[in-house]
Amino acid sequence: MRAQFITLDGIDGAGKSTNLAVIKHWFEAHHLPVLFTREPGGTPVGEALRDILLNPATKAGLHTETLLMFAARRQHLDDVILPALEKGIHVVSDRFTDATFAYQGGGRGVPLEAISILENWVQGDFRPDLTILLDVPLSVSMQRIDANREKDRFEQENADFFTRVREVYLNRAAAAPDRYAVVDSNRERNEVQTDLEMVLNKHFGISA
Amino acid sequence: MRAQFITLDGIDGAGKSTNLAVIKHWFEAHHLPVLFTREPGGTPVGEALRDILLNPATKAGLHTETLLMFAARRQHLDDVILPALEKGIHVVSDRFTDATFAYQGGGRGVPLEAISILENWVQGDFRPDLTILLDVPLSVSMQRIDANREKDRFEQENADFFTRVREVYLNRAAAAPDRYAVVDSNRERNEVQTDLEMVLNKHFGISA
Repeated sequence: MRAQFITLDGIDGAGKSTNLAVIKHWFEAHHLPVLFTREPGGTPVGEALRDILLNPATKAGLHTETLLMFAARRQHLDDVILPALEKGIHVVSDRFTDATFAYQGGGRGVPLEAISILENWVQGDFRPDLTILLDVPLSVSMQRIDANREKDRFEQENADFFTRVREVYLNRAAAAPDRYAVVDSNRERNEVQTDLEMVLNKHFGISA
Repeated sequence: MRAQFITLDGIDGAGKSTNLAVIKHWFEAHHLPVLFTREPGGTPVGEALRDILLNPATKAGLHTETLLMFAARRQHLDDVILPALEKGIHVVSDRFTDATFAYQGGGRGVPLEAISILENWVQGDFRPDLTILLDVPLSVSMQRIDANREKDRFEQENADFFTRVREVYLNRAAAAPDRYAVVDSNRERNEVQTDLEMVLNKHFGISA
């Protein structure tokens, strides 16, 4: 099996941080070489762009923002993701292109076809081998955001925004069920953990 | 006549700075409202990207660089160029999309068709009303760069690079002679100045 590119995505407050730790632990337990990275960011250029993008004071417009996301992504692919995969190292990215479709597309209104044009421009036909979509009802994600931390620019959006974001995530997963695993993260941690481990076991053909 | 969007372009060392002053003087002399701006840059986001792009220490790859150029351009259009034109103010930009075709395309090898895709994504069918292309033989531009200043990232390229850059500029001008005015800037300043003034007089329908 060649090295796999796995992405973890979902609306803010879906529990990505907690579940990334579960995924890390799974890779360690199976002694599989893996690199964890994140978007936007993952490279010096990407982190500089991340600062521009996530800063509430930034004045980047919607289309500029979308282009910057893809610029950071291209650098991330060239410098981090593709070289690791070529060396046989699995890569897990905290967010990837699905987030652009969901946030800039569903959330903020860039036509999804326009995002597809940039996806093809930047990635050619490269897509994740597996995308784990953590899903929670909006009420839960909003509570988690409120409780946890100071909000960044994207987290300051309202409930309608996140409803549209979640809808795009779920639509994309429904349209390509072979590539996506939707994990209901509105449950006890150990239940979610068991589900995640099952998804990874199945993807890598490992019997539990 | 609606407000005009004029761009000034050409290889490094073609004399843009000197001739921008001529153009400014022409607008003043004719009491026409005008805004001067530049690319990359022209907005806070754009200037931040300009720092990333022009810094010799940056590790931005070729495709990332191209996307960043267009991201800055979109912001520049939204925040500076289009609002001014809507208010009836002419806009003169020091470099625009021709520079991306010439530098990232001709110079560095991004396929020109790939650049066209981003041009259409970012600009729709918006194009300059007039592009003044300052042209000099390569030997002259190289001398001017050497003599004048510390080189930025793009100016550090070699003669072959600038030969290809110049060729793309000239090809684009030849393909759309109504939009481009090629001005030979390898002459005495007053001769170039006279030519520039003639180009502007003609474009604005002003008799000298």
